[in-house]
Amino acid sequence: MRNIALLVSYDGAAYYGYQSQPGGNTVQNKLEEAILKLSGEEVRLTGSGRTDAGVHAQGQVVNFYTASSIPAERWALALNSRLPDDIVVLAAAEVPEAFHARRSAVRKTYRYAINSFRFPDVFARTRVFHHPAPLRFAAMREGLSHLLGEHDFSSFTSPLSTKPHHIRTLYEASFTVERTGPGGEASGRGVGYLTVTGNGFLYNMVRIIAGTILQVGEGKRPPSAMADILAARDRAEAGPTAVPHALTLWEVEYGPAWALDWRSPYI
Amino acid sequence: MRNIALLVSYDGAAYYGYQSQPGGNTVQNKLEEAILKLSGEEVRLTGSGRTDAGVHAQGQVVNFYTASSIPAERWALALNSRLPDDIVVLAAAEVPEAFHARRSAVRKTYRYAINSFRFPDVFARTRVFHHPAPLRFAAMREGLSHLLGEHDFSSFTSPLSTKPHHIRTLYEASFTVERTGPGGEASGRGVGYLTVTGNGFLYNMVRIIAGTILQVGEGKRPPSAMADILAARDRAEAGPTAVPHALTLWEVEYGPAWALDWRSPYI
Repeated sequence: MRNIALLVSYDGAAYYGYQSQPGGNTVQNKLEEAILKLSGEEVRLTGSGRTDAGVHAQGQVVNFYTASSIPAERWALALNSRLPDDIVVLAAAEVPEAFHARRSAVRKTYRYAINSFRFPDVFARTRVFHHPAPLRFAAMREGLSHLLGEHDFSSFTSPLSTKPHHIRTLYEASFTVERTGPGGEASGRGVGYLTVTGNGFLYNMVRIIAGTILQVGEGKRPPSAMADILAARDRAEAGPTAVPHALTLWEVEYGPAWALDWRSPYI
Repeated sequence: MRNIALLVSYDGAAYYGYQSQPGGNTVQNKLEEAILKLSGEEVRLTGSGRTDAGVHAQGQVVNFYTASSIPAERWALALNSRLPDDIVVLAAAEVPEAFHARRSAVRKTYRYAINSFRFPDVFARTRVFHHPAPLRFAAMREGLSHLLGEHDFSSFTSPLSTKPHHIRTLYEASFTVERTGPGGEASGRGVGYLTVTGNGFLYNMVRIIAGTILQVGEGKRPPSAMADILAARDRAEAGPTAVPHALTLWEVEYGPAWALDWRSPYI
């Protein structure tokens, strides 16, 4: 059996999340159905992790075992012609037997998009959270800096989490403003991205970080509150869980030992 | 009666175009319904021009007469709360009685988006034409340069055109590549925009220009063919009408005499 890894992009708006469900309408279900149509095999995909209903992916990674002799570089094109147009396989690669999309991952990056202009951008309305009032971008950055490093993130996960512990390491937690109106960043009006990179994320973790840092941006909490919330290890201390449609699983990274060599989708 | 102009952005995917139809589901219908809900008036909107089914607008301009005393700057917010989320009024301004969104317009700009990477971008699939093979960007630019200036554009309009003549002036006809993969523009792979600015556009004119310049990009015609096609004044000489979903009415400009002072949507 060969082990094939796929780099997958999807618009999550129409799906009940990534993970397979008996009901059916998930990204994993659609990918497994496309593989069945292509190779006749009923495979079980392993994803790098779940994404919630409505959450998007720029670079989700999945792997599966196949007896098919289809060359790795053919899988992307062949699957795309069998997938709905809101799921695209960007690249495929044959990987060592031991490669596991979730367990082999060493870093993951998520991005949460926020628009603080008065009016929404109609073309981005399904991927950006519209917050129609100015935000204190500098305070948001300062607040996020408290999350860097290894911490117990119990305050930033759902009480439904079933993980044995909530210690995770964040390597990056930044807020980048990509576009502003007159007055620049000081106006508090712009389209920006919260980007977090870590060794793993708990259930709802990025959305709770987003909901809490928005309160810092609104001036409802000082930036230092982020450190206090972490220390409390209590979900009730953090802000609300921000809406899912503005969240994108951006990138999943694997160690160099796997020599994961995606054929570029850009060629 | 006061004359109110609106700057309107819409995602055209769900509509039978801009212009009102007996069937109903057009952008003009939705705007008129929102005005009725807000002010109780059955107004008849004047748009700067039609957009076809599926075509988008970044900056469509419309005007209407009202007896309402709602201040101009309130219209945008008040209408947005009564509009579907794929239509957004970005700004509103009170204009002189003689202002007419179509007749007063002096320049219009359209943008046609093309992706020549192997795979589509799922997040832009409803607004970008996917052409999964390399394009000769430099040849496309050279071809477009033949369209600049005043010409009879009969070859670039539908035989259904009912205009008294087909002479129009193009001030800009460019192709900008915004993002490329490895190898840069020479690879022929990228996401780019055909931008045309003129004093007016005929029925299907931009989509026929797009369909023809794509043939130049594919190497099926030399850039100089654009001049020959113009000279022929025969629709059959040009290429196909490109798909509507990649076309956006980008901007409508009015002379300085109107002193059109939109309140910025960015504040």
